[in-house]
Amino acid sequence: MVRDRIEKLRESMKAAGIDCYLIPTSDYHDSEYVSGFFQVRKYFSGFTGSAGTLVVSGKEAALFTDGRYFIQAEKELKDTGITLMKMEEPGVPTVEEYLEQILEPGQCLGFDGRVVKAQSAKEYEKIAGKKNGKMIWDKDLSEGIWEERPALIHTPVFVLEECYSGESAASKIARVREKMKEEECTMHILTSLDDIAWLLNIRGNDVESCPVVLSFVVMTMDKVLLFAEGEGDSVWTEELKSYLSENGVELCPYDGFYDYIPQIHNEKVLLCKDRVSCRLIKGLSEDVTVIDKTNPTTPMKAVKNQVEMENLRKAHLQDAIAVTRFMYWLKKNVGKIPMTEVSAANYLEDLRREGEHYIEPSFGTISAYGANGAIVHYSAKEDSCAEIGPEGFLMVDSGGHYLEGTTDITRTFVLGPLTAEMKEHFTLVLKAMLNLRASKFLYGCRGVNLDIRAREVFWERGLDYKHGTGHGVGYLLNVHEGPNSFRWKLPEGAVGSAVLEEGMVTTDEPGIYIEGSHGIRTENELLCRKGEKNAYGQFMYFEDLTYVPIDLDGIEMSMMEDKDKQWLNEYHKVVYEKLEPYFEGDELAWLKEATAPLK
Amino acid sequence: MVRDRIEKLRESMKAAGIDCYLIPTSDYHDSEYVSGFFQVRKYFSGFTGSAGTLVVSGKEAALFTDGRYFIQAEKELKDTGITLMKMEEPGVPTVEEYLEQILEPGQCLGFDGRVVKAQSAKEYEKIAGKKNGKMIWDKDLSEGIWEERPALIHTPVFVLEECYSGESAASKIARVREKMKEEECTMHILTSLDDIAWLLNIRGNDVESCPVVLSFVVMTMDKVLLFAEGEGDSVWTEELKSYLSENGVELCPYDGFYDYIPQIHNEKVLLCKDRVSCRLIKGLSEDVTVIDKTNPTTPMKAVKNQVEMENLRKAHLQDAIAVTRFMYWLKKNVGKIPMTEVSAANYLEDLRREGEHYIEPSFGTISAYGANGAIVHYSAKEDSCAEIGPEGFLMVDSGGHYLEGTTDITRTFVLGPLTAEMKEHFTLVLKAMLNLRASKFLYGCRGVNLDIRAREVFWERGLDYKHGTGHGVGYLLNVHEGPNSFRWKLPEGAVGSAVLEEGMVTTDEPGIYIEGSHGIRTENELLCRKGEKNAYGQFMYFEDLTYVPIDLDGIEMSMMEDKDKQWLNEYHKVVYEKLEPYFEGDELAWLKEATAPLK
Repeated sequence: MVRDRIEKLRESMKAAGIDCYLIPTSDYHDSEYVSGFFQVRKYFSGFTGSAGTLVVSGKEAALFTDGRYFIQAEKELKDTGITLMKMEEPGVPTVEEYLEQILEPGQCLGFDGRVVKAQSAKEYEKIAGKKNGKMIWDKDLSEGIWEERPALIHTPVFVLEECYSGESAASKIARVREKMKEEECTMHILTSLDDIAWLLNIRGNDVESCPVVLSFVVMTMDKVLLFAEGEGDSVWTEELKSYLSENGVELCPYDGFYDYIPQIHNEKVLLCKDRVSCRLIKGLSEDVTVIDKTNPTTPMKAVKNQVEMENLRKAHLQDAIAVTRFMYWLKKNVGKIPMTEVSAANYLEDLRREGEHYIEPSFGTISAYGANGAIVHYSAKEDSCAEIGPEGFLMVDSGGHYLEGTTDITRTFVLGPLTAEMKEHFTLVLKAMLNLRASKFLYGCRGVNLDIRAREVFWERGLDYKHGTGHGVGYLLNVHEGPNSFRWKLPEGAVGSAVLEEGMVTTDEPGIYIEGSHGIRTENELLCRKGEKNAYGQFMYFEDLTYVPIDLDGIEMSMMEDKDKQWLNEYHKVVYEKLEPYFEGDELAWLKEATAPLK
Repeated sequence: MVRDRIEKLRESMKAAGIDCYLIPTSDYHDSEYVSGFFQVRKYFSGFTGSAGTLVVSGKEAALFTDGRYFIQAEKELKDTGITLMKMEEPGVPTVEEYLEQILEPGQCLGFDGRVVKAQSAKEYEKIAGKKNGKMIWDKDLSEGIWEERPALIHTPVFVLEECYSGESAASKIARVREKMKEEECTMHILTSLDDIAWLLNIRGNDVESCPVVLSFVVMTMDKVLLFAEGEGDSVWTEELKSYLSENGVELCPYDGFYDYIPQIHNEKVLLCKDRVSCRLIKGLSEDVTVIDKTNPTTPMKAVKNQVEMENLRKAHLQDAIAVTRFMYWLKKNVGKIPMTEVSAANYLEDLRREGEHYIEPSFGTISAYGANGAIVHYSAKEDSCAEIGPEGFLMVDSGGHYLEGTTDITRTFVLGPLTAEMKEHFTLVLKAMLNLRASKFLYGCRGVNLDIRAREVFWERGLDYKHGTGHGVGYLLNVHEGPNSFRWKLPEGAVGSAVLEEGMVTTDEPGIYIEGSHGIRTENELLCRKGEKNAYGQFMYFEDLTYVPIDLDGIEMSMMEDKDKQWLNEYHKVVYEKLEPYFEGDELAWLKEATAPLK
């Protein structure tokens, strides 16, 4: 099937005069997850992971994806004729290097410029230039091939009230205009969906697991145009329209955005070339000056305000009740009643749904039993998933959207006997997580300074995990949100992760993945807080947002240093105090044991 | 005296039409230490620290210096009328911000463009531009005021043989030409003295403590011009000249460099704007294209080759013998014979001079007793220094140049009773130093990732030290050498410290400074080495180059964790084994005790 599709694509490429066609995983908004309409790379390659770039030339086809997906991609690309390019492995070219290798002199490189970032397109154009070739950026070749393509989705929209957002849209718009003034700009174009949803305090469900609204924003000092209305849709009620107009926002058709762009004249436009599409930049008139900067909304939304912080504690409590109940059910029933990776995940989802103001999962739950845990972003399928039995680990990485915020938590549950290596690994992961969580640091630190607090536990033993230690989390928005993160490796030329500010939320999730055997990850969310201020400066620390027991059955006590025990005991004490009012009987007795202090 | 000089400067400024005159601490080569001829800032301000910028306007005078010198500068600037600007303290402007504050519309900013970096001058020019003012960059206003100014020095030069350098000048020149090709350049201009000395394997003594040769290099694909000959000097013997010509190097007059610059035409010149002077850039003809990149020699010389690594071990052994003998002498004799900070330092220098191939100190020794230890870069003066008695600490930060390389070591010696706080602080510094030294990490790490391994010990307790944890060290060259370092704070927009490569040498020197009470620093040099390579990547570790006991009398045992004891015991075992062949009798018995394992 994949082979047929690629052949059809090659015919379309020939007809369009394109020698090499590139399909990234993106929508028109540089979203991390993309709805059905935009899953072109999946359609042509058969690879179902959330990240990857397909490059098809006359002779070859190659799929580039990262370490999270190596094992999965190998399986799914089998017999498709597509070569897997394991990104960042020694000897594997980058997409750019590969394009430079395969593009022959005078050849043409093509893609749909609406799904390629301006920044990336610039690199591709250089490569085509070197080959005296050209670049076509206005062709979506899936048209005419992908007949059963899903439609664009415009789901219902709601306003996030100020008791949840903590700040009105009008105030946020005013703050962005301040930034525009600072940058001496007259216009700002915003195309990333979480930025728009944050700015206007609107939420929808246009991307799976992301409560955003398909839209573009063009704002000046006195106007905000919101391109969001679908053809003939009834999403935008009179109530919503009057909310928008109260905040000075004018509703325009979603489809009208790319026609509007060339009509902009003589403006100084603030935009982020690393977020907007190539097609947008190409469409701007020559009398427009572009000021390429981070979207002002990006650092603003990363710093949660007092209302958001207080709400997040509530959302995480709801979430903790569900996950802890799940843990009790799982450990009590495994081996006694039939369960699979999917049925367990469904049970957890049922428990979450009982929580107040719960909306939906914040990403596809990873429920991975035994060796499946080693597949970093494993996605269990109903018909092929593993049965869960009374041995080894079940790793569950899941989260929820609540009106009070977004959660992300991973626990690895012990279901029965473990090998000595498994216990050792479980304990390493725990020690790493605890050590980062306990960091106290001077204001000015970035994730790049702190990552080693988790990773050193692994490095000391010649081990590592091939992913960042943590990512920022949105507020009833994307579960992966910049600019804060915990990562040690900086791309050449980048400052890397942002300075950690009070109010930023970052996950702390080291893990270990032993192919064919087991995978372990333990993840808490950390809220950055101001601590002591003295002659040396402003010290910062992390407050736990996640309140779920860590499975004591996995711990190798001989590896636990005094500080490890102290940190875990302090944490479990808080977990017990938070959850105790919501538990009773056997469940409460179990909770007391599950959070009992280590000696 | 300082007031008179500033008044004379103001008269000269008036005559030259300059409203605001800037005097950095620099020579024509952006050297860290500058010889007498270049100590203009010291002459006009009276401040003797090694770093600082003086800005003089009609009404005000301000000296900018960093945390190392706050206490010293406060003393030395007393009654001069010069305001001390404590750099990076809250509310204190940067030099650029200050210029913007004081420069009035239409006014003129001036400096000697030979001692101001091109990069900095660009910022100054922007500020003058904002004020519709102008910038004069070709006036050295010390001429005519500073009558007893020392002459420019051209000391004897020698060739560093291949048994010391490990690579011929011809080979190094060829490697630089490879880089020039990569950057598509036809010419390379090099003005930093350590880069030139490394490239040509020549050494001199033209800057105190820096075995370099005052010179400039202009190289093309077939020629190397070395501008180094002083007027009427006899430095360049026939032997040296034939060495140069064998390596394809042509000797030119030092004074001729700035006249040569405008004669360059139609070249694509590789240079580093962050190292060359403003005057050089201003002097280049319009048909010259500048490619602004790090000097290729900078990363090359930071990575020591096999011969250099082996030699460094020898140099550090010589150095360790001297410093350890000093420690024995000091602890045995304190309170029994008279000694001062200076006489103790002189005794240490005498011991170093007994070492094979010892040349000179690699920087001015810091010998600081008691409260003087809190002055980070304290410099004891013969007539005012402290007497050393049998209590508290003596901190000695010193190093030597040997044919086999450069050393830098700090030890804090316990001379008698300590308070509980002193012991606690001594132990903190030790724990921090040991923890960084014991790092094992994946290739790709930079100092910015690792700094916290030392600093976390302080941060956990709400303490800090206001300097980097470590710096790169040259090979019979500058004791402070980039691009490797251990620092946590990155300037906005910078990648920060370089990736740690096998062969790089970096110091590990946390410290604590309690004003009016005590200062403690413990410093080892670390050689970066390749360790285990496995599926996770290439692991790296540090080899100690410094082999001197750490004073056990300062340790608060209750604070030493098992790992601390293990690391210190392992280290002291190596120290004993290295030194044992060179010690005998009482000295050897003492050494055995001084390196005895902690229980």
